[in-house]
This record gives sequence, C-alpha cells and structure tokens, in this order.
Amino acid sequence: MAPQRVEVVENILSANERLAQANRNLLDQTRTYAINFMASPGAGKTSVILRLVEALKPYYRIAGVDGDIATTLDSDRLAAMGIPAIQINTGGTCHLDAVMLQGALAKLNLEEVDVLIIENVGNLICPANFKLGNHLDILIASVPEGDDKPYKYPPMYRGVDAVVLNKIDLLPHFDFDVEYFRKGVEALNPGLAFFPLSAKTGEGLDTFIEWLREQIDAYHLD
Amino acid sequence: MAPQRVEVVENILSANERLAQANRNLLDQTRTYAINFMASPGAGKTSVILRLVEALKPYYRIAGVDGDIATTLDSDRLAAMGIPAIQINTGGTCHLDAVMLQGALAKLNLEEVDVLIIENVGNLICPANFKLGNHLDILIASVPEGDDKPYKYPPMYRGVDAVVLNKIDLLPHFDFDVEYFRKGVEALNPGLAFFPLSAKTGEGLDTFIEWLREQIDAYHLD
Repeated sequence: MAPQRVEVVENILSANERLAQANRNLLDQTRTYAINFMASPGAGKTSVILRLVEALKPYYRIAGVDGDIATTLDSDRLAAMGIPAIQINTGGTCHLDAVMLQGALAKLNLEEVDVLIIENVGNLICPANFKLGNHLDILIASVPEGDDKPYKYPPMYRGVDAVVLNKIDLLPHFDFDVEYFRKGVEALNPGLAFFPLSAKTGEGLDTFIEWLREQIDAYHLD
Repeated sequence: MAPQRVEVVENILSANERLAQANRNLLDQTRTYAINFMASPGAGKTSVILRLVEALKPYYRIAGVDGDIATTLDSDRLAAMGIPAIQINTGGTCHLDAVMLQGALAKLNLEEVDVLIIENVGNLICPANFKLGNHLDILIASVPEGDDKPYKYPPMYRGVDAVVLNKIDLLPHFDFDVEYFRKGVEALNPGLAFFPLSAKTGEGLDTFIEWLREQIDAYHLD
C-alpha cells in the first residue's frame, strides 16, 4: 500500500504547484505582495498580524485571507480593523493549498490590494508541503512552545524567509534558551532573518515591521 | 480532482481502521492497556507523560511509543526513566497511524507490558482521523495556546476520553478563561473528564493519576 499512497501524494503536490504558479502570476499582474504566516496553534499568528495591519495600514492597501478548519473568529478580527478579509474553512484539512487560495483571490479586488496577508491553518507540519503562490513565508514561533521546536519540526522551519519568536515577555516564566532555539533555526536556514518580539507588549515589533516594509517596498519598486 | 482525492483518503482510512483493529486484538491478547496522548506542539505531552510514568511505575509494567517527525528527543527522555521506549519517526507525516504502531508493537515484548503510553505527533488536526487501536484517547491542551482552541479545532476535541489542561501555573500571565474553554469542550463532549493541572508544579496531577488508575484497573479486572 505504501508506494501507491506516495504516488497519489506526489500527484496532488504537482497539481498544487501548477496552481500556486497561477496564483503568483495573478498576484504579480496586480502588483499584490502576498505574505504567508504559518505557526503552531496558539503561537499568536492573529495577534502578530493585527499589530502588522495597524502599522502598515497608513502606507499600503491591505487585505487578509484566514485559514482555519472551523469558525470565522480570525477573519472577524481582521474585518474589525476595516480591511477586506476572506475566511477559508478547510473542513478539517491541516493546511491551505493553492486551490483554496485561488478561491479566496477571486473574491478580492486585487487591483486595490498592495499587500495580502495570508494566515495559514494553525499547524507545525502540514503547511510546509503546500505552496500557495505567495512571495514571502514567515514562521511564527512562541516561547511557551519550547526551544526544541526547530529540531523537532525541521520541514516547517526549513525554507521560510523569516522566523518570528513571539511572546518574549514570557521568557522569565519559561526555561527557554533563545540561543539554542536560534542555533536550531540557523542549522536549517543559515543567515535567516530572526525577530524576537512580543505582540502583547510591542517589544521588538518595530524591527520586524521595518524589515517587512523593506521587503514590500523592494517588490513594488522592482 | 476533489472527488478523486476524497476517495483515496477514504481508502487509506478504511485500511487504517482494519489495522487498528488488529493492533487492538494484539493488545488485548497480552492484556496491555494502551493510552494515546495527543496535543499541539509544545503543550507539554512529554512532561505530563514523564510525571505519569513516575507515578504509575510502582504499580504497572510500562512501555512507551513516541511519534515525532524527526529526532529521538522524546523517547530518550522516556528511556532515561528505565522503561522500554520505541521512537517512531514519521518522516514528515503529521500523525501516527495503525501501520506505524504495528511496527512499534512488534519491537516490544507486550507480554511484559501492562500499560503502553503512546505519544502521538505534536499536531492539533491530523491525529483525529487515524485510529491506532489503543483503548483510551487523551488530549493535552495548555494555557498558552489560548482558550479558543476547542472552538477552532473541533475534530481533535471531539471523541477523546479526557482533556487535560496543562500549565495552569501560568494562568496569572494569560487571558485564559477556563470556563469558556471548558464550555467549548463540553459542547463537543458532554460530561467529558477534564483535568486542569501543571506538570511543572504538580498541582492537579493526583486527581488525573487517580482517574487514570481507575481506567487501567477496570481494564485489567475485566
């Protein structure tokens, strides 16, 4: 049974890659820079994103796509900030895929969106295998998860463009060795951009937002 | 493409169910009570399990099976407690399945195991769909993940036999409404056993261990 299963997975992945490329082409036609945020459940994806929207809104036209297996809790919070927000309920699937993003893109007026923020399903394994067509991949880790996560979940930590370490205000309450964590990230992605911050207190946010604006502006000036 | 994909998934699941039943038969032949622990990454599965092993070791012969996508960090910690421990590296798959457990069972001398502790892959979505053949399913949640998780991840919270809420020593540092969390659990599993505790401080552990011993003893007396 095992070889057959592998073959099917490969077929799905290759169909997904083609659709991801189509999404990318569409985004590039409308000059929409798309950022995919991935994280474990409860790492604070939505809280970090709300901070970003607040900081970036004066400069760019922003829209959001939220992936969850159920509820519209996250997109409701984005919509409450006055930006167009599309919820994708995956019905149990542990990641977004290019078909789902294609459906969401069709519901947005991309001509009027400079930056598209995609919040993937809360999962530290599945999203690694499914490209969406976005321009930037960011992994949000958090202090309560523990400093061993890059070692235990290498596929998710490999191949992202930046790692955010959220909830650093909790460092005094955890045995979390930031250097050990960072070494694990570095082993998988030498020289990777790394941003320790707290979405709650705001500490470290400015550096991350500045870096993000550089990426967005480089794209739009290109 | 979608209907074809669904059909393949159903084939895999039905093959898995048959193997899970075979695992259960094997476990029952040797009177080995198997408990499957599931949780999000970083919820503290291993820490809770180490506490249990410590408490149960005087009364039962225990063995452990650890599922991770990479490393032997968790099984090393179990083995250090002097119990037989098998590591399953899933190679990227986001859950254990019945085939994987079958392979691990073959490596253990089950005649000499009263209680088998299975630590599933850290994931709040995938393990819900793959039965293993164990007798008891326990979900470990943790305070830092947030109180909305039963609402956002219903398939994992539905159908378990107990929910542990770990890291309650951190409640003062989080906006976590235990009643809201519990209501979400109750809506999916009316009357479910619920154990708030801290693997770190030991608070609440006794009640959970007492309940667990009741389940184990009921099985062995049956």
